[in-house]
Amino acid sequence: MAHVKIQVETMRSFCHEVFRKFGFSEEECRIIMDVLLTADIYGIESHGAQRLVRYHKGIESGMIKVHEKPEIVHETPVSAVIDGHEGMGQLIGHFAMETAIKKAKTSGVGIVTVRESNHYGIAGYYAKMACKEGLIGFSATNSEAIVVPTNGKKAMLGTNPIAICVPADPYDFLFDASTSVVTRGKFEMYNKAEKPVPDCWGADENGHVCTDAGRVLKNIKSKAGGGILPLGGADELTGSHKGYGNAMIAEIFTSILSMGMTSNYNLVNNHGGTCHLCAAIDPACFGDPAEIKEHFSTFLQELRDSPKREGKDRIYTHGEKEVYAEADRLKNGIDVDVKTLEEMKDCADYTGVDFDKYFGGLGVSVHYDPKEHTQY
Amino acid sequence: MAHVKIQVETMRSFCHEVFRKFGFSEEECRIIMDVLLTADIYGIESHGAQRLVRYHKGIESGMIKVHEKPEIVHETPVSAVIDGHEGMGQLIGHFAMETAIKKAKTSGVGIVTVRESNHYGIAGYYAKMACKEGLIGFSATNSEAIVVPTNGKKAMLGTNPIAICVPADPYDFLFDASTSVVTRGKFEMYNKAEKPVPDCWGADENGHVCTDAGRVLKNIKSKAGGGILPLGGADELTGSHKGYGNAMIAEIFTSILSMGMTSNYNLVNNHGGTCHLCAAIDPACFGDPAEIKEHFSTFLQELRDSPKREGKDRIYTHGEKEVYAEADRLKNGIDVDVKTLEEMKDCADYTGVDFDKYFGGLGVSVHYDPKEHTQY
Repeated sequence: MAHVKIQVETMRSFCHEVFRKFGFSEEECRIIMDVLLTADIYGIESHGAQRLVRYHKGIESGMIKVHEKPEIVHETPVSAVIDGHEGMGQLIGHFAMETAIKKAKTSGVGIVTVRESNHYGIAGYYAKMACKEGLIGFSATNSEAIVVPTNGKKAMLGTNPIAICVPADPYDFLFDASTSVVTRGKFEMYNKAEKPVPDCWGADENGHVCTDAGRVLKNIKSKAGGGILPLGGADELTGSHKGYGNAMIAEIFTSILSMGMTSNYNLVNNHGGTCHLCAAIDPACFGDPAEIKEHFSTFLQELRDSPKREGKDRIYTHGEKEVYAEADRLKNGIDVDVKTLEEMKDCADYTGVDFDKYFGGLGVSVHYDPKEHTQY
Repeated sequence: MAHVKIQVETMRSFCHEVFRKFGFSEEECRIIMDVLLTADIYGIESHGAQRLVRYHKGIESGMIKVHEKPEIVHETPVSAVIDGHEGMGQLIGHFAMETAIKKAKTSGVGIVTVRESNHYGIAGYYAKMACKEGLIGFSATNSEAIVVPTNGKKAMLGTNPIAICVPADPYDFLFDASTSVVTRGKFEMYNKAEKPVPDCWGADENGHVCTDAGRVLKNIKSKAGGGILPLGGADELTGSHKGYGNAMIAEIFTSILSMGMTSNYNLVNNHGGTCHLCAAIDPACFGDPAEIKEHFSTFLQELRDSPKREGKDRIYTHGEKEVYAEADRLKNGIDVDVKTLEEMKDCADYTGVDFDKYFGGLGVSVHYDPKEHTQY
């Protein structure tokens, strides 16, 4: 598929205008775009501007309620429960992390759990928010059930990512990963390339290991059974119960403590019901933050300097690749495929934004044909 | 190897007397034995009475300092840092979790990080302590570096288990797992059985996947390179960086926040330096604990009731197997192999405890020959 490079600021201005037309305020648009573009800039394109179509369809169908504001429904000095009232996930996540940061700055710890939200983008964005304030940040979310538990054949769990961000030099530690072995996007890539997926990735409709990406995706869509496997694959022998356990940790801190909907009820009947965690801890709870940061940075450097496996020239620490991706994207722009451009054109037409004003000079002809696009 | 069944109370009385002879108080012996026997009762024999020899050797060599007491060196209403002063890990872990529980009961959250401890047994024991008080309990520990980071060939990380225990009916949720794909004990089992291990378990001295359990164990012992792989195996394709990230989370909350020794310095020069986390959160921070417990129990039941993979008749939730193991062990006793009995005999002779008073009626002849035993 043809790809084009779009400068970050062009994409930001276009999407900003689109979200304004959807009815969000200037400040709300700024937050939404910061979350979406951070994904693109970090090289996690599956959660960036590519998602515009999903938010467009969510708003159009009424699943995402533009004018609803998140509300704190329970609170202590170290905790809060937020009802998102089915608003825009990014705004709810941002509010939740701001709440957690405030509590961490006064009480040392802030743990905020959220119910009745929608897809909020990358968990790492919120964890990083806390880290920018010198705190340890956490975020997690549940999501549509597309992951089977160990020994199961029905998807009962979301990909349930957990992110943690901790201050370090020369770059912060940022670990943001689904608790499944991969996310759906990886299956889509393999399906397009007509390549078999590794045998620890997916289960067919009977729960057996399945290396046919197209079959797994089709089954997920039609809810015919099977789905993505937990980190650790299909069996306890390879640690499947551990990935399943990590998914449960995400579930406990998102849907359980908030009294929200567990992943197996997520996105049923055009109701998102997504639940999140945003938490922050002040390292001053444990001593001098500067000393702790230096201690951690030393260990990270020791890891990067440690002997490499034959044939590998680097050991990465988490968050390092995002730093390289950011430098590249800010210089060279974001890689966008023509299908995404077509969805952006459709969204522009729907909201009355002048698509050509932003993208007319790209030299590609963009026509949206609904038959060629998945309906979300 | 020949096995015998030993009643739980017989084992408790014997080990209690041994630890008394080592110089621990009545109450200290009670705590140590409760941690050790909980492992046996839960079916995690590798961390139970089998470990007596390691504690024996640790005390004999001066690595474990019998008369040192844990000390709180930094404290806030929601946190503490404890220096274990190289004492007995179980006593330090127990004190750390008692501290976390007290803080959670008054402040909602208690996060306690520990440095300069020794091996503390199963992480799940401490998480369960909090759960027995109606709290959400966490514990984690670092350990001797026997796990390689993704792309590495030198073991830089411990097996770094993380445990969480959350109140639920009919049994608490208890997830206690190493962040490596397996622990060393599994390699030892495969080595004894002369079976190749799965190709996501181990790396040889060059960092390549290695299915020869004996070779991996020999390299670990001689520090020749390689070791156990993170959950997710050797490559990012199968999620290796996620297991590595989970190991880092354990490291951050144990050795980093406590300013203690990271796993790569653990057990160097007969100095344990092990670091732990014990944390507790009061679910009342988020609403009515009884409602939250019911909500969680419903989800756990839905998971157990969900459709099974072809050929499997059950989906377990975490902590369920421990309940079955406990019922079995309390009725039928603990399974102990003759090698462990020999080590217990050696320990009895060293401390002047009458071995036959406890085990004379087992009908097995037990002679300790140092040449037949690994030196710890």
